[in-house]
Amino acid sequence: MSYTLVIHGGAGNITPEIMNKQQEAEYTQALKSALDKGNKVLAGGGSAMDAVVAAICEMEDNPLFNAGRGSVFTKKGLNEMDAALMDGSNLAAGAVAGVRNIKNPIRLAREVMLHSGHVLLCNEGAGEFALQQGVEMATDNYFFNQSRYDQWVEIRDTNFTQLDHKGDNLKGGPVPNTGHKFGTVGAAACDALGNLAAGTSTGGMTNKRFSRIGDSPVIGAGTYANNNTCAISCTGHGEYFLRAVVAYDVSCLMEYKGLSLQDACAVVIKDKLVKMGGEGGLIAVDAMGNHEFCFNSAGMYRGMTNSAGKEEIAFYGV
Amino acid sequence: MSYTLVIHGGAGNITPEIMNKQQEAEYTQALKSALDKGNKVLAGGGSAMDAVVAAICEMEDNPLFNAGRGSVFTKKGLNEMDAALMDGSNLAAGAVAGVRNIKNPIRLAREVMLHSGHVLLCNEGAGEFALQQGVEMATDNYFFNQSRYDQWVEIRDTNFTQLDHKGDNLKGGPVPNTGHKFGTVGAAACDALGNLAAGTSTGGMTNKRFSRIGDSPVIGAGTYANNNTCAISCTGHGEYFLRAVVAYDVSCLMEYKGLSLQDACAVVIKDKLVKMGGEGGLIAVDAMGNHEFCFNSAGMYRGMTNSAGKEEIAFYGV
Repeated sequence: MSYTLVIHGGAGNITPEIMNKQQEAEYTQALKSALDKGNKVLAGGGSAMDAVVAAICEMEDNPLFNAGRGSVFTKKGLNEMDAALMDGSNLAAGAVAGVRNIKNPIRLAREVMLHSGHVLLCNEGAGEFALQQGVEMATDNYFFNQSRYDQWVEIRDTNFTQLDHKGDNLKGGPVPNTGHKFGTVGAAACDALGNLAAGTSTGGMTNKRFSRIGDSPVIGAGTYANNNTCAISCTGHGEYFLRAVVAYDVSCLMEYKGLSLQDACAVVIKDKLVKMGGEGGLIAVDAMGNHEFCFNSAGMYRGMTNSAGKEEIAFYGV
Repeated sequence: MSYTLVIHGGAGNITPEIMNKQQEAEYTQALKSALDKGNKVLAGGGSAMDAVVAAICEMEDNPLFNAGRGSVFTKKGLNEMDAALMDGSNLAAGAVAGVRNIKNPIRLAREVMLHSGHVLLCNEGAGEFALQQGVEMATDNYFFNQSRYDQWVEIRDTNFTQLDHKGDNLKGGPVPNTGHKFGTVGAAACDALGNLAAGTSTGGMTNKRFSRIGDSPVIGAGTYANNNTCAISCTGHGEYFLRAVVAYDVSCLMEYKGLSLQDACAVVIKDKLVKMGGEGGLIAVDAMGNHEFCFNSAGMYRGMTNSAGKEEIAFYGV
């Protein structure tokens, strides 16, 4: 019974210089906990889908990551979260954008996939669907995180938005480097039956305005799974990932050009995306259980585990 | 100076049986007006982008189509519109979802592309951006259309949603056939410089709930343009187009597998999408000025014009 699980906790300017030993230990523990949750599902004969949801929930519940409980603040001082999930066995997909007070947005994405008749719901409408489905809610206080709040306070009176994973803003011109708050999370898995699944969850950009939607909840851009090719979750500067249709591009390079998972990821992340100016990375698995971590940023919080008992956790570039 | 423009006004159960002579004349005139607007731009040396916006605005202003002025009503009795635009010369893109009181959503999508630093904005947030940019607004009364309203009244007390282009609903089980109100609109063009552009605009589904977002505003799904391959606008049952990443799939089949525009469209629409159960179609151009209409439904309102003086307008399958 062979299986593989990969996870990420965001890509960006992650270097040994900005991390102390305590932080390294905290992130290692957080990633290990998520791997353990997913591994337990897969070892018990569970599906790739269930493993992906379990691993992502664990990271959503951890304030270290910009997803669920650790989500950043919008221009209006709110936590608005995005998530997506795709089942590679039947190409079913569900996603939500701009949802508030949902304890685990990835669970709501699964409800959308299974019970809405739709793929993508957003904002208050997605919240109404969550209430109807009885998805677990949480108060604003649950989502409050002092460091995320301080990060927002520093730039809230500007029109700058800030990627959670880098110290500069989208529109050029420096804003105060508010530390190293990284954090979109994602998971991809291949289970014992050869079924693939992928999911992504994020709090988006600090000081986000205009109900901006990034790549995370968009099927084909930040999240994609297909048993014939691969399962992928992306993290990075979402606008570039949307324009480059990153996750589906990897899948197409495998399906139509015969590239390996490794080569397809490298073409998209290290060549095409770099030429566009898009920073970030992805995690991926294929149906043979191969896995790939690929990023053009300094680092990416990442981990893998498989049925052979292998476990890797890493942060920095190699 | 060679150029090509294609447009659509929705695909679905469009047959000679449901159209009378007056309706045929009205749709012919509406499509011709949109072609004329776009052709004028291209004949004057204008860009594919400007031609696409001009053609789509003309259809948004015509209540015959489910976009802009003719948009259908949501569960709450509102008009919530989606639109997207992509520039094949630089892969720039802009889109909006769930916007209200925007006279021409395709113009707002262009503002997002050019001035927001983002790709996709939604709901009230997109409306705030529209106000900031000074985009032309219109009252609820401007969007009111008796036949759309009657169509909504027939099903508003149910939880059924209805595709604007077919007489049955998403969740199985018939709802009253409220006539033949088709109508997502789109355009794709290749200009004299070989630059491609594509755009799509829609009012979505009648009785829509939960701020559902379909394929139209999603880059890669309902809308895509790339000078190296093609420019595409889709119309149909959006959830399937999202899961199949339809527009980018056509592009990838051309780029990675070497298929012609015609063959790539046929593979995606008439084979892959049919196997998934997804109904609809697309219009496309490539950089050589080839064009393609492709649909797996009974018909698609469609038209083309080019620099050689050719003009086609058609509704039904061939």
